Amino acid sequence: MSTAVNPVSLDALLSHRGKLAPSAGMSDPRNSAGYISFIYGFPDTETLPNDTVLEATAKALAADPEWALQYGKTTGEARLIFVLLDKLKRDQGITASHDNMMLTAGSSQAIQLLLDLLIDPGDAVIAEAPTFLGFIDTLAVSGARLVGVPVDEEGIEVDVVEQRLIELREQGVRPKFIYCISNFQNPSGNSTTLERRKRLIALAQEFGTLIVEDDAYHDLRFSGERIPPIYALDDSGSTIYLGTLSKIMGPGMRIGWIVAAPAIIAKLAGLKSDGGTNIFGAHVAAAWVPAHLDAHIETLKRVYSTRRDLMLAALDEHMPDGATWTRPDGGFFIWVTLPQAIDTDRMLAQARERGVEYLPGVTCFTGGVGTNMLRLSFSFAKDEQIDEGIRLLADVVRSEMLETAR
Amino acid sequence: MSTAVNPVSLDALLSHRGKLAPSAGMSDPRNSAGYISFIYGFPDTETLPNDTVLEATAKALAADPEWALQYGKTTGEARLIFVLLDKLKRDQGITASHDNMMLTAGSSQAIQLLLDLLIDPGDAVIAEAPTFLGFIDTLAVSGARLVGVPVDEEGIEVDVVEQRLIELREQGVRPKFIYCISNFQNPSGNSTTLERRKRLIALAQEFGTLIVEDDAYHDLRFSGERIPPIYALDDSGSTIYLGTLSKIMGPGMRIGWIVAAPAIIAKLAGLKSDGGTNIFGAHVAAAWVPAHLDAHIETLKRVYSTRRDLMLAALDEHMPDGATWTRPDGGFFIWVTLPQAIDTDRMLAQARERGVEYLPGVTCFTGGVGTNMLRLSFSFAKDEQIDEGIRLLADVVRSEMLETAR
Repeated sequence: MSTAVNPVSLDALLSHRGKLAPSAGMSDPRNSAGYISFIYGFPDTETLPNDTVLEATAKALAADPEWALQYGKTTGEARLIFVLLDKLKRDQGITASHDNMMLTAGSSQAIQLLLDLLIDPGDAVIAEAPTFLGFIDTLAVSGARLVGVPVDEEGIEVDVVEQRLIELREQGVRPKFIYCISNFQNPSGNSTTLERRKRLIALAQEFGTLIVEDDAYHDLRFSGERIPPIYALDDSGSTIYLGTLSKIMGPGMRIGWIVAAPAIIAKLAGLKSDGGTNIFGAHVAAAWVPAHLDAHIETLKRVYSTRRDLMLAALDEHMPDGATWTRPDGGFFIWVTLPQAIDTDRMLAQARERGVEYLPGVTCFTGGVGTNMLRLSFSFAKDEQIDEGIRLLADVVRSEMLETAR
Repeated sequence: MSTAVNPVSLDALLSHRGKLAPSAGMSDPRNSAGYISFIYGFPDTETLPNDTVLEATAKALAADPEWALQYGKTTGEARLIFVLLDKLKRDQGITASHDNMMLTAGSSQAIQLLLDLLIDPGDAVIAEAPTFLGFIDTLAVSGARLVGVPVDEEGIEVDVVEQRLIELREQGVRPKFIYCISNFQNPSGNSTTLERRKRLIALAQEFGTLIVEDDAYHDLRFSGERIPPIYALDDSGSTIYLGTLSKIMGPGMRIGWIVAAPAIIAKLAGLKSDGGTNIFGAHVAAAWVPAHLDAHIETLKRVYSTRRDLMLAALDEHMPDGATWTRPDGGFFIWVTLPQAIDTDRMLAQARERGVEYLPGVTCFTGGVGTNMLRLSFSFAKDEQIDEGIRLLADVVRSEMLETAR
């Protein structure tokens, strides 16, 4: 029945976690259709590889007809694991074996599993501030405390990480892990330098904590030198590496992965109760990746670097003095800082009225800071929308500046 | 790196839940290939709908090329939700709308989400004993206490449910929910009668708790009258209904669903952090279900009812006196009870030596009971293996009886 006549009081039955969880609306990404949308970290629609995925589906069903639609392993379909291990070795410089890897429903599920493994309410976690809003939301439900560390053009500020670790130690607190988006960070667009990556590893070791490296954008570098992942630099086994097909194949596959020490993978397998990630999709991806991934990544780099360039040029041309922004070497995002008096959350309604939308900065922090900042995603809007969208946004910013200067 | 040189001590960083989780092995269902396997609740290999899934994939990618591989809604792809709502209305007699439903990675993820929503360590849950081993394992990691209620040929023994509810109330404990597999229960094969379903609803209302109805086998009835789901009988909004495509399309799709009051779905959406269940697969299923589900279910009923009949005939013919078993009207399972002295867990090695395997009963209970019981799955073995497999098993049972009678 769809209506509750005399329902049991749900509140009286909720767990601690259930109480922390928001009642989530039924928000649908398709609702952005009316805007020039710089809000979502979505891949470009036209590059979604529908044709080759269909081809790969035929191949996958023929290659393993007894198992492609059957139950599978908790840690994920071995065909795809072996394909990904090869790819990680070649492109990421990560040497790992089958017992170092588990497939997950995107990085999102990987984060949830790691929180399940490590977090009790009240525990501390260090992360970049700003950081990935999905991480903030999931962490909030776990009851953990987020200790933020600023990001500059060289990535996470490791001196501040050390300071925070010392402060926490003085409080008798060992943070459970340091969460770091090492390349083209979401939302700042900045990458952490090699030197800082090494320093982060040393700090994690010194203070007895783990590093969770989220490297969702690794393959989408348009300029600058590739930097080895923290995982590849850390021979202590204390770094946990997260990757995903969402940005390089399609988010609809809902396939990501965790690479970690076998003891960590085995414990995560004990927590993973969903019957193995998307067995059918994993078979399809195992056929698709070797045949199409490399060419697809080249296409994506062309598409997204053009958009980054268009957006940076538009910002240079249209934005008033007093606004600053990052210049990322890859990924999906540019991070904009406006004068302190401007509230980008409040400003969003006006921007939408003009037909453009972005992500307010406050969603990428805890504690209500970042109110004068915003994230622009250049991945999802069309080339021909970008100059127009930034012009509209700059108009809104300019009138806000006038308003707040009064 | 695959080896830890100087690893951070994982134990010191684990959460309460992380400590409860087992270190899971990399067990692979394909390892059963050498046996006549009555162990797994797997669908028959040859009926897996590879050809029509490929057809549906082409249709799905053409029907929604912009969104089939894109990010989707937390509660799941709407195309599939609407298709399933129609199916549930027609076949299950369940009237529900979009905000009553969420897609999940099989029933397994649905169970995990419900435990996340409701369970703190030490909480009590009532379930049939024996019950689904995946439920027992997931519940153990949540730290909940399982209060078992026997099952007979009319299903869950509601008088005992009442007794347990009274006892718990006397201890000041309100159980978080009653878990009931209403049709062709895993592992007993028995269904709960209409009368008992109504009584269960009244008891849940009286004692202020929820019912979680797991109806994974609903569509696989070979004989007897269809019984309305508890969900359809409960106008109070206190029943949560779980279903899955695993047994009627393919487990590799990893698609199941929860139907519940909108307030419960909204809270579950706040806990679900995996970016929406298998968006690509959901688009494929949305194309497949309307075109192929009905015919496929008819095929499956033919295949499985034949196997049930073969297995019952083989048990009648080969099993020694002192063994009894259930005669299910549908589903995948027959439950066998042997003389008390026989330990089916220990006996499994001998059975495997003869080339046949089954699920020891102890895995379907908590507290080490059910040692003289075992579950036979007739879904996955070939027709021509069944008589032979039961004959081999009966030989092992007979020699165990002689052994233990000494």
